[in-house]
Amino acid sequence: MYTLKSTCSTTKARLGQLNTDHGVIETPIFMPVGTLGTVKAVSQDQLVEQIKAQIILGNTYHLYLRPGCDIISEAGGLHKFINWDRPMLTDSGGYQIFSLSENRKLEEEGAHFKSHIDGSKHLFTPENVVDIQRILGSDIMMILDECPPYPSTYEYAKNSMELTHRWAKRGRKQFLETTHHYDHKQFQFGIVQGGTYKDLRIESSKFMADQDFEGIAIGGLSVGEPIPLMYEMADLNTDHLPNEKARYLMGVGTPSNLIECVARGIDMFDCVMPTRNARNGMIFTRYGKVNLRNSKWKEHHDLLDPDFPSDLCNKYSMAYIHHLIKANEIFGLAMASVHNLTFYLWLMEEIRERIKNDTFGEWYPEMSKQLDKKL
Amino acid sequence: MYTLKSTCSTTKARLGQLNTDHGVIETPIFMPVGTLGTVKAVSQDQLVEQIKAQIILGNTYHLYLRPGCDIISEAGGLHKFINWDRPMLTDSGGYQIFSLSENRKLEEEGAHFKSHIDGSKHLFTPENVVDIQRILGSDIMMILDECPPYPSTYEYAKNSMELTHRWAKRGRKQFLETTHHYDHKQFQFGIVQGGTYKDLRIESSKFMADQDFEGIAIGGLSVGEPIPLMYEMADLNTDHLPNEKARYLMGVGTPSNLIECVARGIDMFDCVMPTRNARNGMIFTRYGKVNLRNSKWKEHHDLLDPDFPSDLCNKYSMAYIHHLIKANEIFGLAMASVHNLTFYLWLMEEIRERIKNDTFGEWYPEMSKQLDKKL
Repeated sequence: MYTLKSTCSTTKARLGQLNTDHGVIETPIFMPVGTLGTVKAVSQDQLVEQIKAQIILGNTYHLYLRPGCDIISEAGGLHKFINWDRPMLTDSGGYQIFSLSENRKLEEEGAHFKSHIDGSKHLFTPENVVDIQRILGSDIMMILDECPPYPSTYEYAKNSMELTHRWAKRGRKQFLETTHHYDHKQFQFGIVQGGTYKDLRIESSKFMADQDFEGIAIGGLSVGEPIPLMYEMADLNTDHLPNEKARYLMGVGTPSNLIECVARGIDMFDCVMPTRNARNGMIFTRYGKVNLRNSKWKEHHDLLDPDFPSDLCNKYSMAYIHHLIKANEIFGLAMASVHNLTFYLWLMEEIRERIKNDTFGEWYPEMSKQLDKKL
Repeated sequence: MYTLKSTCSTTKARLGQLNTDHGVIETPIFMPVGTLGTVKAVSQDQLVEQIKAQIILGNTYHLYLRPGCDIISEAGGLHKFINWDRPMLTDSGGYQIFSLSENRKLEEEGAHFKSHIDGSKHLFTPENVVDIQRILGSDIMMILDECPPYPSTYEYAKNSMELTHRWAKRGRKQFLETTHHYDHKQFQFGIVQGGTYKDLRIESSKFMADQDFEGIAIGGLSVGEPIPLMYEMADLNTDHLPNEKARYLMGVGTPSNLIECVARGIDMFDCVMPTRNARNGMIFTRYGKVNLRNSKWKEHHDLLDPDFPSDLCNKYSMAYIHHLIKANEIFGLAMASVHNLTFYLWLMEEIRERIKNDTFGEWYPEMSKQLDKKL
């Protein structure tokens, strides 16, 4: 499903394509997160026309609980339920269960957990998360994994990784033995774990590379560890992953994180940051980050960035958007969300152009610093 | 500013036009409410392109407190602050102060009140609400009035009406003595009061008719009185208002209220109902009202009304919208808000067509009943 088109001459950055039955995805790419079958505060039309999203992500844990598999199955799958005909990736719920902490229990069989909505008890296994994702009908599904917290002891990280590996084999078996629910092809990605221990990261990369997954994700990062350590682990992982498969770094990150990790050989990203931060007034721009809740923008009647193609930048004054966000007005939250995602997708396009022209290597270190500036 | 174009042969319905420096408004019309310089959950582009709003309303009380007159003045007025170049009407704050109950005190001079945001003390007078609305730069401003609660004693309603009349004269004087802040013309509307007492309603209508306001509003209705009484009062008021001035029924109402009041000679309406109800899942359609929060729509995978021009009706299944609204997802709240306003403006256009063809009289009684049905 992945075609490597070209590589950067000075970094590990790769230009590629993912072929799915819902369309081709140009990589490196960022995937907006649509937890409950909607990218928060954004419409499907805006995703296509304004943000230019090529693929979005759905959360199995959330969708399984609400509206539930019956409803989505009746609708003919998640694409039809939410009226989205571009590619979609679903996670396995592993990360969400990990976040529940008190309300989950891991066993060899799978993960027992209590719903955050009504406290009801459920079990996710390597097999049934495949079945659920067959019903959801995503183009790319993920295996069930355990995401260990940071920091974890070596022993915990090792045992956890080994559990993820055993689950990976069971999940792949289930994937190969089940048929597609709908008329499009689904792919399955494995997930590398290993905490922040180099030998475990290498072992896990090699393990996942040895399976026949269509792509490989890097999990367990961006969970509280220092950023340089995250970069180091991602770099190490891609060193031991096959060139002919897509690499997806889960849950990352800031604009500079994306650039830095592309330089370390990553093809795919997802994160709630652009939409979550938008709702708090944190706006990403080419020149750095802006907190539009800050009262210093109260009387700033100029546009934020007249040449950037988003309403937030070129249509409404900073004073107006500051006012909307301070008053928690939905229009402000929505406009900020659309802007941040437009910016993320713009950045990925810029990255692809730079790799294509082979100017990425000289461009990214300065750009990475600039994106982290506070305006 | 108002031109009467034609009248219905069997009811008091009127087809007309309002001419403002920001454009012509075809009446009867409904004005979406943009309390804080934004129609809740709706963008300015959606107001123009999808909803086809001809004029929107801003609340002086809310805008005066937040972002404040200084900011709006610096921006060059409310039109420029929110980037809206169509007509705009601002109320005087009278109704909002009335709603504060415990936190306001009326005196001859004006209305003392405490901010609902920070408890700070303020005074609105017939004169300074003109000054504030000069700064806001609305095309149509309203006089300061007292809106008595329902029920009120005859004595209270009479004294209150007389205060509103004295304030009306002071407000008009201030209007005539002040110049425009910006380069477009502003108009001022008087407000009829009188509680639910026929003789007071007639007296107040005649009083306002005798002043030289550019248009006349009917206030103090839709504050808890029975609907038939509201219709009776509106009917009585328009009997005593001049044909050559626009009549604006403030704060009304449901779709059937609009139809019934057009039949009683009203030209302009505003109400938060379409947007507020939308955020609670209450959707207005040609066939009646639908509560999309109701679990009976959970597995309803059809479109609500495939021939109605809104995304909520013709693009997403009822099951999906039910899911979004139950989960309080902004996309759902926004889509419902856009739909309800699109429906209100569609209804007003239908009404205008019916008056034009002189089929309004035979059409409206059945339509009014149909719009009140619960689906």
